Amino acid sequence: MDKIKIGIIGYGNLGRGAEAAIQQQEDMELVAIFSRREKINIQDNKAKSLHIDEVKKYKNEIDVLILCGGSSKDLPQQTPYYTKHFNTVDSFDTHQNIPNHFKKVNEVAQESGKISIISVGWDPGMFSINRVMSEAVLPEGKTYTFWGKGVSQGHSDAIRRVEGVKDGVQYTLPSAEMISQVRNGKKPYAVKNNLHKRECYIVLEEGADKKNVKDKIKTMPNYFDEYDTVVHFITEEELTIKHNHMQHGGFVIHNGLTVKHNHVIEYSLSLGSNPEFTSSVLVAYARAAYRLSQEGIKGAKTVYDIGPGYIHPNSAQQLREFKL
Amino acid sequence: MDKIKIGIIGYGNLGRGAEAAIQQQEDMELVAIFSRREKINIQDNKAKSLHIDEVKKYKNEIDVLILCGGSSKDLPQQTPYYTKHFNTVDSFDTHQNIPNHFKKVNEVAQESGKISIISVGWDPGMFSINRVMSEAVLPEGKTYTFWGKGVSQGHSDAIRRVEGVKDGVQYTLPSAEMISQVRNGKKPYAVKNNLHKRECYIVLEEGADKKNVKDKIKTMPNYFDEYDTVVHFITEEELTIKHNHMQHGGFVIHNGLTVKHNHVIEYSLSLGSNPEFTSSVLVAYARAAYRLSQEGIKGAKTVYDIGPGYIHPNSAQQLREFKL
Repeated sequence: MDKIKIGIIGYGNLGRGAEAAIQQQEDMELVAIFSRREKINIQDNKAKSLHIDEVKKYKNEIDVLILCGGSSKDLPQQTPYYTKHFNTVDSFDTHQNIPNHFKKVNEVAQESGKISIISVGWDPGMFSINRVMSEAVLPEGKTYTFWGKGVSQGHSDAIRRVEGVKDGVQYTLPSAEMISQVRNGKKPYAVKNNLHKRECYIVLEEGADKKNVKDKIKTMPNYFDEYDTVVHFITEEELTIKHNHMQHGGFVIHNGLTVKHNHVIEYSLSLGSNPEFTSSVLVAYARAAYRLSQEGIKGAKTVYDIGPGYIHPNSAQQLREFKL
Repeated sequence: MDKIKIGIIGYGNLGRGAEAAIQQQEDMELVAIFSRREKINIQDNKAKSLHIDEVKKYKNEIDVLILCGGSSKDLPQQTPYYTKHFNTVDSFDTHQNIPNHFKKVNEVAQESGKISIISVGWDPGMFSINRVMSEAVLPEGKTYTFWGKGVSQGHSDAIRRVEGVKDGVQYTLPSAEMISQVRNGKKPYAVKNNLHKRECYIVLEEGADKKNVKDKIKTMPNYFDEYDTVVHFITEEELTIKHNHMQHGGFVIHNGLTVKHNHVIEYSLSLGSNPEFTSSVLVAYARAAYRLSQEGIKGAKTVYDIGPGYIHPNSAQQLREFKL
């Protein structure tokens, strides 16, 4: 069987994760990784390492291009641009801009006859699927999404901008008490700040005042002021050793009623590495993009449009035989 | 907007559940419930209660027919038969016969131009989706399915056939210790009898010997002999009051590795009523059958073929705007 030929654009955490995930998939091969940097050392010695300007030369040699850039600057340009010549998959995750991103990508894809699956990952992605399916099955219900424990990049950036802070990370933690209520069939009133807590690990600049830094963080508008926030001061060494991981995860819990019975549907992820998991989801959806393209399907799609069997290496018949 | 017009065949637990579930869906209306019995009292006073022989007369008035019969005798005949004239959804759950059932239904559906989504429910159904998606994303991993706590009909029937047993129910219970191991990233060797325990509640015939009955149950081949089985003796009254519910549920836990990080994906259901939940899933997939049929899609399908967004009342655009 011919393998699905994949290209990767971008070689940050996500690109490296995608490279590794492709090696775990028997029906895929990595053709090349394209980067803005002059020369990068990649892991897969059967694949090429190329400059991003070379991409178009490979339009006949790559079935699906996995776009591993960031959502703020890279993907809004890259996904429409590359979908002119390639089937693409991206992890665009700026929730409020998804409809606009979809529209732009869809226009290009309809024109070029390619398929692009956007906003793939775990949220948006696997979590979105579980929210939508649970609500569809039990419409008289309520869905709660809890994130964490995991590092929030936005909040970590915010604390690092505080005067007196040399370095730091911020963890988002789900409220154990709220999870327990929802699991037990209760439907607590959820507001912005009662589902999660925030925990900061801070390395101070020399001579900075602890109390002052702590106050500035805890009162920071939008980011922390309305949350239950804990601030810890640690050494630079401790930060490097203990807080240099990329664990994340969370819970989607739906609590719904039929006639007179309550039901709880729970989906949870406990991820050793946020980018490695996200890129594994991207790689599985690259398979769906390839198959749908083979069926003549074009245009922009999201995870909502894709039958779950399309992401699995087995054929539909094999899935019916062994997995139903 | 025109509502999706639904018919139900069969008025047991599943049919009653489907009737109630349709009332929770704003974009659906129940046209009629068809039963073999002469006259049944249905709940929905806007729908008709009709004899099963009347079904064909409604072929232009029903968009999707939900088949609520049993998998052993009803559905193998009914699904191919009614798919000649209707889009259908069924909950056929005899795992090993699914490929053959699919083939028969698909032949009819291709010929009639209708769509039939078979084997819809929670297992097969939601659990199958989660097994397949988890394996696709993390192929270097292992999936465990735990069922329960819930009544197993097959095992309850088996204990009721034991001499000296007047009545009884059997619960399947997942092994809490195995769940804990899998959740913690371990991949224990799973055999038939170490993931579940069995618990029996027995009402004895007058004069029957407890020890004799207990021995017969615990040594029953295939059903109990290899399992950790507990037998409780109770009164008939206790059985009626305490064991007359239809709770069920379970866990699909996948434990997988990327590069050097472990990830755990868990999907769990805690169901107040097994048939009410199953029929709620059937009703949501009836929506998908209707929409796909409107798109000109025909043939037999399973949950693997259906994009999750198709089962939700919102449009694809609304889902992208509010739910991604």
